[in-house]
Amino acid sequence: MARLVQKFGGSSVRDAAHILKAARIVADAHREGKELVVVVSAMGNSTDELISLASQVNAVPDPRELDVLLATGEQVSISMMALALQSLGLKARSFTGPQAGILTDDTHGYARIKTVQASRLETSLRRGEIAVVAGFQGMNRNSELTTLGRGGSDTTAVALAAALKAECCDIYTDVNGIYTTDPRTVGSARRLHSISYEEMLALASAGAQVLNARSVELALRTNVKLRLRSTFEPGDTGTLVTSRELAPEYQVCGVACDSDRVSVRLVLSQSFASEGSTRLDEARAEKIENVLEKLNQLGVHSKNILCKKADSINISELEFTCENRISRQVQSLLNHAMEEFPSSQMLLDTGIARISIIGSGVHTDREIRNQLLNTLSEAEVPVSMLSADELSLSAVVPANFKEIAVKEVHARFCQESPQAVTVH
Amino acid sequence: MARLVQKFGGSSVRDAAHILKAARIVADAHREGKELVVVVSAMGNSTDELISLASQVNAVPDPRELDVLLATGEQVSISMMALALQSLGLKARSFTGPQAGILTDDTHGYARIKTVQASRLETSLRRGEIAVVAGFQGMNRNSELTTLGRGGSDTTAVALAAALKAECCDIYTDVNGIYTTDPRTVGSARRLHSISYEEMLALASAGAQVLNARSVELALRTNVKLRLRSTFEPGDTGTLVTSRELAPEYQVCGVACDSDRVSVRLVLSQSFASEGSTRLDEARAEKIENVLEKLNQLGVHSKNILCKKADSINISELEFTCENRISRQVQSLLNHAMEEFPSSQMLLDTGIARISIIGSGVHTDREIRNQLLNTLSEAEVPVSMLSADELSLSAVVPANFKEIAVKEVHARFCQESPQAVTVH
Repeated sequence: MARLVQKFGGSSVRDAAHILKAARIVADAHREGKELVVVVSAMGNSTDELISLASQVNAVPDPRELDVLLATGEQVSISMMALALQSLGLKARSFTGPQAGILTDDTHGYARIKTVQASRLETSLRRGEIAVVAGFQGMNRNSELTTLGRGGSDTTAVALAAALKAECCDIYTDVNGIYTTDPRTVGSARRLHSISYEEMLALASAGAQVLNARSVELALRTNVKLRLRSTFEPGDTGTLVTSRELAPEYQVCGVACDSDRVSVRLVLSQSFASEGSTRLDEARAEKIENVLEKLNQLGVHSKNILCKKADSINISELEFTCENRISRQVQSLLNHAMEEFPSSQMLLDTGIARISIIGSGVHTDREIRNQLLNTLSEAEVPVSMLSADELSLSAVVPANFKEIAVKEVHARFCQESPQAVTVH
Repeated sequence: MARLVQKFGGSSVRDAAHILKAARIVADAHREGKELVVVVSAMGNSTDELISLASQVNAVPDPRELDVLLATGEQVSISMMALALQSLGLKARSFTGPQAGILTDDTHGYARIKTVQASRLETSLRRGEIAVVAGFQGMNRNSELTTLGRGGSDTTAVALAAALKAECCDIYTDVNGIYTTDPRTVGSARRLHSISYEEMLALASAGAQVLNARSVELALRTNVKLRLRSTFEPGDTGTLVTSRELAPEYQVCGVACDSDRVSVRLVLSQSFASEGSTRLDEARAEKIENVLEKLNQLGVHSKNILCKKADSINISELEFTCENRISRQVQSLLNHAMEEFPSSQMLLDTGIARISIIGSGVHTDREIRNQLLNTLSEAEVPVSMLSADELSLSAVVPANFKEIAVKEVHARFCQESPQAVTVH
């Protein structure tokens, strides 16, 4: 019997009425004879409400205890969904992350799924039940509750689809597919019929909220087909995320904006032996190398760090952006490093946004690079950094310019039907 | 090092401010050098809110799924309490019921604790942590979440005190001890300095909300000393619940009222061979015996069932009260039984209250029985049933007479300082 994983996000289960609506979508798939695993997020804004509750008793909550608290959000959703399915006459059973066998590493608040021990779910499916699983949570080897970070329910759904060899993983949300940019901010955004894992991953990594980057990475690795669909238009098949062989290759498939980043600039004091003692220069270079290595460990890769040099050898400035999530760790790392460079300076800017265009080859195409800079310049948007990844080209702009930047860049690159370089 | 279990009820952890206040009580005990286990209930009315949420998707929620839902209430509390303790600079760690090793039977919604596997808690205490444990919940042998029913957090606290050999179990609530009756309804109620397990159990079984009957039963069996104290007067030592040897023996220690009961009257059709065929009479008696046996299994004991006889042999009516909680089961049992007695009748009355006086020997003292009936009669309170248990004497009255009944009975028996028959 064909298996299907269906995942419903927070907005799709925001209250009892929405849960019943989602349950009817599940019932339809059940009527088609599918074996079903349903993954649910916490209802509506309940995760944010729980975080705010914690902050009322502790300004810097311990990540382990915060995970115990946050895990309740999805636990409420699984029981509510199971009860809703039962009220429609279906057999259903809820599973917390630990009960579903989702085993993670120890990183509270941003845990990574290591393996899925799916025997309890298999038994449930064999009994003819719809298995309802809590997204976003798991258990480490010490039986401690862990959570996977923002958007972690997508990753749960993909991990289960892989472990249970499901034919597809349907991600239900309040938009009906992947768009060339966020349709809530740019009305002329166009929906993509399908997209490759690689381009989707680049979009998600560049800040497209629609799918969590880790879940796409996992889908790519395990070859799980994803469909992004709307709870409100269940008849619409949405956007398919699949392998490169089955998806068109776009020159530019979309524009993404990430406002949840911090720009960091580290201005280093010059070598005190400015006359150029080779030995001192070498020691200095080694220290800088050391900082770069530590940044790399935090996920800030050297290729995305702009290094300005005072002369042919001496690096005088490091500039990069990083996720807000790790900005505290980056700061403390750099504070520590600065002790080695007297009178150096660190400049942090949270008021930035990173605008990225995604597509095969954008990062090597000089033409596209120039078009991006010209477009922003014509719109009088100041650009502070340009960086590139395999499938993306990004510009850092002041946060208050982000709407106009996205709109203009989208108009320039995506106004026409997204151009497929090849269609298989 | 002396160990102490402290339990905080829903009203004591109703919001962040109250949780911090409770945490300060824990911190005080920690400063005195105690090893501490803290048991918490769900915040404020959250259990009722969750029940109401479930009813929005399913009119008759499956008990297993309801337990998954309700267990989130205490899980929120444990993390909040652990975070509050940490914010006061203490080492604390939260445990769900399953994590704390609370193993129960399979009765979802009213599970009984079978054993406590306390090794994880022992490890935590050895590490110098304050262990914060979710009340009201446990896990059955299939790793399913279970809940213990109303007031179940008291039972959790006592079970942990017994398993961890704590010197005492402090139950913190919004009243500062055990009173001769509910001080919120009778202003002249007097607080008891101490009370025996047996009398406390009789009070709790008779409907005194202050402590859960199962928890007292367990304390009696395991000889765990209980102290009932107020979160709002932490300096006050409240009421001690202890063994008969250490507590005074009261003639009447209190008056309790239970409005959460249903009165049931089953009027049976007469034997159709009313002339008296012995064989038919025997068959009939056997059927009735069968009904009584099944009621006994539901917890309605024969000694509390009034049987009216049509003649020397034939029982023509059964009358009793039962907890609201089991009234559906009782109804379906009797409906089934009635098929054997054509044209029999079942009368249910939910508009009743049971008023009980508790004390050593009240049930055998004819004087007290007459005083009770006279007091109710003088107050013009109609009495429909009188029943007795080892330490209690109860009268069933219409619900709208319960306040006046409690007030008058309390005035008659407890207005003076509770009279200790003996003080050890």
